[in-house]
Formats: sequence, structure tokens, C-alpha cells
Amino acid sequence: MNHYSYDQLHTFSKKIFLAMGCSESHATTAADTLLSADMRGVDSHGVARLSGYVRLWEKKRINAKPNIRVVHESPSTAVVDGDGGLGLVVAPFAMLVAIEKAEKAGTGWVAVRNSNHYGIAGYHAMQALAHDMIGMSMTNASPLVAPTFSKERLLGTNPIAVAIPADEEPPFVGDFATTTAANGKLEILQRKGEPAPNGWIQDKEGNTTTNAYGVKEGGALRPLGGDRQNGSHKGYILGSIVDIFSAVLSGANYGPWAPPFVSFIDPVSDPVGEGLGHFFGAMRIDAFRPASEFKQHMDQWIRRFRGSAPIESNQQVLIPGDPERAFEKERSKKGIPLLEPVEKDLRALGMRFEVEF
Amino acid sequence: MNHYSYDQLHTFSKKIFLAMGCSESHATTAADTLLSADMRGVDSHGVARLSGYVRLWEKKRINAKPNIRVVHESPSTAVVDGDGGLGLVVAPFAMLVAIEKAEKAGTGWVAVRNSNHYGIAGYHAMQALAHDMIGMSMTNASPLVAPTFSKERLLGTNPIAVAIPADEEPPFVGDFATTTAANGKLEILQRKGEPAPNGWIQDKEGNTTTNAYGVKEGGALRPLGGDRQNGSHKGYILGSIVDIFSAVLSGANYGPWAPPFVSFIDPVSDPVGEGLGHFFGAMRIDAFRPASEFKQHMDQWIRRFRGSAPIESNQQVLIPGDPERAFEKERSKKGIPLLEPVEKDLRALGMRFEVEF
Repeated sequence: MNHYSYDQLHTFSKKIFLAMGCSESHATTAADTLLSADMRGVDSHGVARLSGYVRLWEKKRINAKPNIRVVHESPSTAVVDGDGGLGLVVAPFAMLVAIEKAEKAGTGWVAVRNSNHYGIAGYHAMQALAHDMIGMSMTNASPLVAPTFSKERLLGTNPIAVAIPADEEPPFVGDFATTTAANGKLEILQRKGEPAPNGWIQDKEGNTTTNAYGVKEGGALRPLGGDRQNGSHKGYILGSIVDIFSAVLSGANYGPWAPPFVSFIDPVSDPVGEGLGHFFGAMRIDAFRPASEFKQHMDQWIRRFRGSAPIESNQQVLIPGDPERAFEKERSKKGIPLLEPVEKDLRALGMRFEVEF
Repeated sequence: MNHYSYDQLHTFSKKIFLAMGCSESHATTAADTLLSADMRGVDSHGVARLSGYVRLWEKKRINAKPNIRVVHESPSTAVVDGDGGLGLVVAPFAMLVAIEKAEKAGTGWVAVRNSNHYGIAGYHAMQALAHDMIGMSMTNASPLVAPTFSKERLLGTNPIAVAIPADEEPPFVGDFATTTAANGKLEILQRKGEPAPNGWIQDKEGNTTTNAYGVKEGGALRPLGGDRQNGSHKGYILGSIVDIFSAVLSGANYGPWAPPFVSFIDPVSDPVGEGLGHFFGAMRIDAFRPASEFKQHMDQWIRRFRGSAPIESNQQVLIPGDPERAFEKERSKKGIPLLEPVEKDLRALGMRFEVEF
């Protein structure tokens, strides 16, 4: 696989966003958000998705010149209307509002409507860290997940991210889809021609299947837990909370009405809100206790967990964020590896917009 | 099984709390909280646990006359010191603080230290509903859960509850342990002499076991997901977030330092904070959008999900809170069934405190 530097891919992505008509600052923000996924090893959400955003823009489902604004607020809350903009730009705006609210009121909570796919959840949550705040981020998404006992796809993979600062230790950064496995993992199995583990997906009748194409063939992803006996109702609750906070609180489309990411599936003709929804939170640590004290206890928490007795001597216990940090370290040195189909896709995009790849 | 009315068990529990030295209002609050579990079918957290609270009080690990107070605050946050009181009383106090903060600031977030077991998470979250607020509640607990890849018990079953109001439909009330299965479910299997499903527990070497006594024999409960392939790292993240919000933010004991509920295991000799921790949240709906509008959309959300195509025609799709509501309806009519060992336990308690059972 060929490797590309962060700067190469950032410059390229930014030029594509500019070519779409984004402002200089929006194009920079969008490229920052997009590339954070490649750096952290979440390849499904990085430059591999760039052409997908372009296709949505071509279908006029993404507005390159949005007027992103606060439409409702209280001392600790706000609702942001993304004006159909790139989620990659709308989300950082909204997270900043949450941080500003938290500076004054102790915490800030921002629900967003009329947005689009916002990249990786963790990136937005992590914006709070430098302010000695805990950051939170969640979003609803294209319906691919069936609630426990249901045959229908009513929820997205609806991720939750929480970033918590420490002192000498790196931060705690949990970032996960509320399904057993994210859709990107299925794509990997499909490429390898391997079956899916039991509990990840169900076929269109609702039966567990190991067919890695099960979702494409009318089935659904299953909520975290996999089946009722193993707690899938808990994954269903989590995905629902994300959906309600992101979309019902904000006035976006929720559940099966959420707009699909892929451009070849049209949004529903009977929307219940505007665009996709997100939800962000920022909590100032010293609104609870002195930040230095908290961060020292976080160091102790992290060291105790990381140092706990492992089951296998060659696999130590991880702290949420460790795997992504390992990717970031390696890719800072060696660059970002791209699969051939992704390179081809980006090359075509470059030719079309007359941007060198 | 004999059935008892709510009033019978409430009166009895209140008298026991009074006998411990609780004030009239604390005894009432504690009985309200405790009985909510029996009514909602969470038998492990109701009157069956009453003698456990008494034993902790005998060991001077519960203070019957606590001075519960706010020790730190900002417009949208507070830290409450429970002064070693019954969690059944400390938690309602803290939830009320969260609601009062939300009245003014839009949201209220309260971290609690120096508390004890607080009953069912859902009861506290539901206090927000009557105020047209979303309620949240979580708590850390005795360490019984091993993080992914670990042999050690570092986390409790750390539940999360979220209560969301609707209009004509009953509210959405999610309330779940962040493990594959709660400890109470293992007790049921033990009584029946049945094995545990794969993924619920691991033995002391960290291997999956179906031995329903595995936890008692030095093993651990597993986080929601069960194993790495099925997403147990996500359950581990969730349990950790609950631990950090409840105990590191508040100054309580976290992780393996959390005080055990059972009186025959002493708390650690090197505490990192005070008592057990909780975390509560209240979000005023109209700090985001008009409450009536939100609640009508919640009705639509609930109806769409409940009405979705079921896998089995005899098992419709449930809304979080439905199973507990069914228990509440039945038990309001027929009373609360108690197992013989629980009756015996309560009778002994009654004799000791000269309270008629």
C-alpha cells in the first residue's frame, strides 16, 4: 500500500472542499476533521469518504456555503441550525458553542439539526480537553440497525464519544458505535471474503446470519449485545438515546427518517425534521472540583486499570483511546496508508476538480 | 409466593428506617425509593435488600442522620456530599438539586460523593419527567466487573438510566447495568441450578465460563458485549464513564476502591475518596425546543418503534420502560410477590426492631 503524509492528504482534501465552494476557513476545518479519522486509524471515516461528501453536494444535499447559527439558547444550552452544511464544519462550530457555554455556566449542551455526516465522534469530544473540560459528542445516522425483536432498520450506528483529560497520562477517549460492530468492519470482512461473527447482523427475516453481505441484502446490524440474552436491548437503548438527543431535541430527522449517507438512496419524502442531528456536551472540570486534583486522580485511575493483571501476558489492559493513539504515532512517522480503490477514487476526484493528487 | 401490598411493605420499610434513627422525612424518602424497585419488577433492589442496608448501618458504614449538603457549585453544576447517608435518601436530594439548577440554567448536573447504594437508577432519572425535563442517573458500585483483557474486578455493574417525557405515550425510561447481565440474573440462575450463558461471566483465570457461581469463585462479570469480538470494550468504556463521572468528578472512591455493598467485606484500607459516587442530570426540554413540540415528536418516535415489524409475531418491539410498566400495573393490582427467604429475612428484621411484618 502507498503511504501519504498528513499534509499531502490535508492539502488535497482542502482543495476539494474549496472547489465545492466552501470558504477558506470552512475548507480548513473540514479537512482537519476528515483527516483526524485517517490519523486515528478510522479509515472508513477519513479521505475514503471524501467523494461521498462530494456526491451529496452534487445532489444538493450538502450546502457548501451554509449560514450556521444558534437558533435557541439558555445559559447552558443551545440549538444550532447547520443550514445543510458539511457536518465536518457544523460539528466543530457547535462544539465551540458548548465550550463557550461551559466557560460561563459550568456546562454546555448543544443539539444540532439540519446537518450531515460529521466524521468521527471522538474528534469533536476531544476539542474540550485543552480547556480542562470533559467533552461529549454523538450523532444519529442512516438507518441500518434493527431494535431488539424488530425486523426493520430504525436506527443508525449512532456513536457516542467521551473525552476526559488526565494530567501526565494521555486522556481517556472512548468513541464507539452503539452496535456490536461498526459498518466499516463488515466492509473489511467483505473484502477478505470472510463470514461475520454471530450477533453482528441479522437477515431480512430477523434471523442471525454470518453472511457479511446480510445488511446489503435487506438485513440489519444488531445493537451492542447482539441478542436479547446478551443484552441487545441495552445497545438498543443507547442507540435510541443518541437518536433522541441528536434529533428529537434539535428538530432533525430521527429514527428511520434520518437521511441516508449514500447519495444513491434518496431521503424520505415525509421528513419529520431537518437533516441529520448531533448532540455535544462540555463540562468544565472545576465546576465540580479543582482540575489539577481531578487530573491527578485520572492518572491514578488510568495507571491502576492499565496495570491490572491481564488474561494473556501479551495483551495488556487498554485505556480507551490507546489504539487510536498508537495509529496516530505510527502514521505521524510513516504516513497514512491508502487502499488502491481509495487512491483511484481520489485520483478521479482530483482530475474532475483539476486538483493534483 | 405470598403477595404484599405496596402500603404494607412501604410502612414496614419506613418503620425499619425510623428504627435505624432516620428522620421522618428521610425514612419516607428511603421507603419510596426502595419500593419503586419492587413495583417495577427489579426484585434484587427492593425490600430484599433492606436487611443489607441495616447490616451496613450496624457496621457504621451508613449514617442514619446525615447532613447532606452542596459543597461546590456553578450555575449548572453541583457536588453533593452525602455524609455517609443512605443512597436511597442522598440520591433524591441530589436529583432535586439537578432539577433546580435546570430550572434556571437550562440543565443541571450533580456529582455525589460519600454516599451508599442508591436503589434503582431509573427511579431517580424519572423524577425529572414531571418537570418536562430529561432525567439521567448513574452510580458506581462494588467492583465485580473485569475490563476487556483483564483478570481483575475493577468496575461495578455501574448502571445508566435516562428518562425522557412523551405526550400521550408513556415516557421512554432506559435503565440498565453496563454489563452483559446484572448480578441479580446470576442469582436467579443459581437458585434454579442453571448454567449461565456464554459471555456473561469469566472465571478467575479470565476464561469464559458458564458456571453461575463463577463470580463468587473469584471470577468476574463481563462488560456489555461479552468479549472483544462482540464489543466488550464498549461495555468497558460505558462502565468506566459511569465510574469517572460518579466518583472521580465528585471525590468518591472509584474503580476497585469502591466500597462493597455486602457488610462482610470491609472497604479497602487505602481509600482514594469518600464513600460511593453517583451522577445525576436534568435537561429542561424547552431549553432546546418547546416542550409540547418535543413531546409530540416523542409520541411519533415511540409509535413508529413500537409498531415496527416484529421478528416473531408474538413478541412486539418494546419501548424502554415497557417491561417495568407492565410489572407496575400488575403489582398495583395483585401486590408484590416475595420469595420465602425474603419473607423470612424481613420477619427476622421486624422481630429485631419490634416492627410488625
